[in-house]
Amino acid sequence: MAVKYELIKTCKQSGARLGRLHTPHGTIDTPIFMPVGTQATVKTMSPEELKEMNAQIILSNTYHLFLRPGHDIVREAGGLHAFMNWDRPILTDSGGFQVFSLSKLRDITEEGVTFRSHISGEKLFIGPEKAMEIQNALGADIIMAFDECPPYPADREYVKASTERTYRWLKRCMKAHQRPAEQALFGIVQGGMYQDLREESARQLVDLDLPGYAVGGLSVGESKELMYEVLDYTTPLLPEHKPRYLMGVGSPDALIEGSIRGIDMFDCVLPTRIARNGTAMTSQGRVVVRNAKYARDFTALDPECDCYTCRNYTKAYLRHLIKADETFGLRLITYHNLYFLLELMKQVRLAILEDRLLDFRDAFMMKYYGSLHPEKPF
Amino acid sequence: MAVKYELIKTCKQSGARLGRLHTPHGTIDTPIFMPVGTQATVKTMSPEELKEMNAQIILSNTYHLFLRPGHDIVREAGGLHAFMNWDRPILTDSGGFQVFSLSKLRDITEEGVTFRSHISGEKLFIGPEKAMEIQNALGADIIMAFDECPPYPADREYVKASTERTYRWLKRCMKAHQRPAEQALFGIVQGGMYQDLREESARQLVDLDLPGYAVGGLSVGESKELMYEVLDYTTPLLPEHKPRYLMGVGSPDALIEGSIRGIDMFDCVLPTRIARNGTAMTSQGRVVVRNAKYARDFTALDPECDCYTCRNYTKAYLRHLIKADETFGLRLITYHNLYFLLELMKQVRLAILEDRLLDFRDAFMMKYYGSLHPEKPF
Repeated sequence: MAVKYELIKTCKQSGARLGRLHTPHGTIDTPIFMPVGTQATVKTMSPEELKEMNAQIILSNTYHLFLRPGHDIVREAGGLHAFMNWDRPILTDSGGFQVFSLSKLRDITEEGVTFRSHISGEKLFIGPEKAMEIQNALGADIIMAFDECPPYPADREYVKASTERTYRWLKRCMKAHQRPAEQALFGIVQGGMYQDLREESARQLVDLDLPGYAVGGLSVGESKELMYEVLDYTTPLLPEHKPRYLMGVGSPDALIEGSIRGIDMFDCVLPTRIARNGTAMTSQGRVVVRNAKYARDFTALDPECDCYTCRNYTKAYLRHLIKADETFGLRLITYHNLYFLLELMKQVRLAILEDRLLDFRDAFMMKYYGSLHPEKPF
Repeated sequence: MAVKYELIKTCKQSGARLGRLHTPHGTIDTPIFMPVGTQATVKTMSPEELKEMNAQIILSNTYHLFLRPGHDIVREAGGLHAFMNWDRPILTDSGGFQVFSLSKLRDITEEGVTFRSHISGEKLFIGPEKAMEIQNALGADIIMAFDECPPYPADREYVKASTERTYRWLKRCMKAHQRPAEQALFGIVQGGMYQDLREESARQLVDLDLPGYAVGGLSVGESKELMYEVLDYTTPLLPEHKPRYLMGVGSPDALIEGSIRGIDMFDCVLPTRIARNGTAMTSQGRVVVRNAKYARDFTALDPECDCYTCRNYTKAYLRHLIKADETFGLRLITYHNLYFLLELMKQVRLAILEDRLLDFRDAFMMKYYGSLHPEKPF
C-alpha cells in the first residue's frame, strides 16, 4: 500500500489518536491540519513559507485542476508535486464535492455527473473512472474516491440511494485506479445524518480494506452537535490501523472535537478564506484587522504567536494593507492563520501524548470562544 | 547632510558614473534601480524577498500614504521603516506628481494644490510645507521637494511659469524641512522640453547646494529621443559630487541610456505593474506568460536567470497561476521582473567599472529589443 498509518498512542483522557502517516513523499504527524491549495497553490503562499510553518501535507482540488490547467498538462509537468514545486505529501479530493457545489446544471446518473464548468460554461463529465484518471495524472500521495455529498437536510430515501451509489462508485474507482503502489485511495463514509446509513456505509467500506477512510458529508449546514454525534457513532466503526480524514472541517473547535473523536486528518479553506477579509485567528479569539479600532494598534496580531507576521508587523500595518487592497496583507494574515492552526494541531498532539486533550480543549475553548460549547465559531 | 554621494569612477567609454550613496540606513551602489512601494509595500513582495534580490533602496509615495493610512499613523508607528519592516534606505516622492495625475478637480495656486482624494473624494490640500510635514513624518532617508510636473506637450509660457513656481516651492520646502540631518531633501529640475528653461532650473537648484538633484517631468509622453536629448543638456549642469535621480523611468533601455547620460538613480512601477498582466522582462525580451503557447512550456521564464522564480517554476505553471488569478503568480513574476532590473543595473555598474557601457548597451539592446534604438519598449 502507498501509505501506512502507525498508531503511536491513544489519549487516556479522550480516546484521541497520536500517529504517523507514512507516504511516498514523507511522514506526517497526526492529527494534522492540511492547508488547501485549490488551484495548485495555497493562496498567496510559497512552498517555502508552508515548510517554514511546518505544513506537512497540503490538499489540492481535482475539480479545479481538471478544468484549469487540465490534468494532462499537470501530468506532462511530471505531476502536481513537480508542477507546483512541493515535494511533501499531497492529497487530492475526488472532484465530487465541487461538482455538486460549484458547477451549474449538473445531472447525476449511475454513470457519473454531467455538469457545466463554472469557468467556461462548457459541458463536462466526471464519473468514478474519470476521477481516477485525473487523480492518477495529478499523482498525489492520497487520492479520494468519487462520491456524492448529499445536501443537508435531505430525506432518508435520497441519502440512502446516494450512499449506495457512492459505494458502487467506490468499487469502480478501485478498479480504475492505475497507481495503487504510489497513490493511496481513500473511501468516503457517507450516509448523511442517519446513523444506520452511516453504519452501513462504514461497514461496507471497511470490508474493502482500503488504505484510509474519510468521513464526508459533514459541515454542510448541520449543527456542530449533530456533526459530533455523527462522528461519535461513525469513527468507532473504522479500523484502528487506518487513517481517518474528516473532510472540509477546519474551525479550531472542530479540529479539537474531531481529534477527540478519533479523527487524524482535517482540511478546510477557512484560514485562507477569512484572511482575505482581514480576519485572523489568534490566541485571544478572532481579530478583524479591518476594524477602525486597530488603526493605531502597534502591537502584534497575536501577542502569543511567534510566526513571521507576528514577529515583524503590527495590526496597524496589517489594517493599512487590507484597507489598501494590498496583496501583502493577505499574505501576512494567511501566513498567520495557517501557522495558528498548524500550531494548534501540534498542541493537540502534545496533549494526546500527555493524556490531557479534554483539559486542553476546555482551556482552549474558554480562551478562544469564551465558551465550552461555541455554537457559531467562524 | 543626511546623504553623501561618493563618485568612484566615470566610464571612459560613455561618461556614466559609478558611485556610492551613503544614507542613514546604509550605502547604495549607483547607478541603482529603486523598486516602488507605493502604499508602504512593494506590491506582493516581502522585505525579505526584496533583500534576497538585493534591492538596496525602495521608493514610497507621499500622496498615497497621506491619504491612507495618514502620515500621523506612520509617524506614531516610528516612521515608514518601522511601519513596513524595511531597514534599508527609503526615498519618498513629494506627492506632486500623484496630485496631478491621480486626483480630480485639482486647483493650483501659489500656495499649493487643492484636490480631491481619488479614494474618498474628500477635498484636500498639499503645498510645500504640507509635503515636508508629511515626508518628515514618514522619515525616509531621501525626500523630494514639492513640484509641479507639467503635462506634455505644454506651451513655453505655461512651463516657464510652472517651473518658476516649482522653484519658489522648493525654497519653501527647504525652510519647512524639519529633519535635514536625517533626511536629504532633493530638488527637482523641471522646464519641460525647453532647453533654456531646463538650464535655468538646473542653475537655480545648483545654487541652493542641495544634497541631491532629480530630473523630473520626463517620461510623460514625449519620445525617447527627446527624453535623452533633455538629459544630454541637463545632467552636465548638475554638480559632479551630488546624486542625480531620473524620476519615473524604468524600462531597460532607458535605465541604460540614462546611466550613460550620468543618472545615478531610477524608479518605476513598470516591473511590478506588467507582472500583474503576466508579462515578464527576460534576457530574450519580454514574455507574455498568459499566451496560449506557454501552456505546455515546462522551461523557466528566463533560461539565463537564476532568480527564485526561474530556479523553481515553469512558464506552464506561471501561466496557470495568472489565468487562475492566483496571487502567487503575481508574486513570482514580480519577483523575477524586479530581479531582472536589479541585475541589469549590476551589469551596468560592472560595465562602467570596465569602461565598456556603450558596448554593453548595444549588445543588450540587440538581444532584448532586436534593435539598437527601440522606440517603443514596454
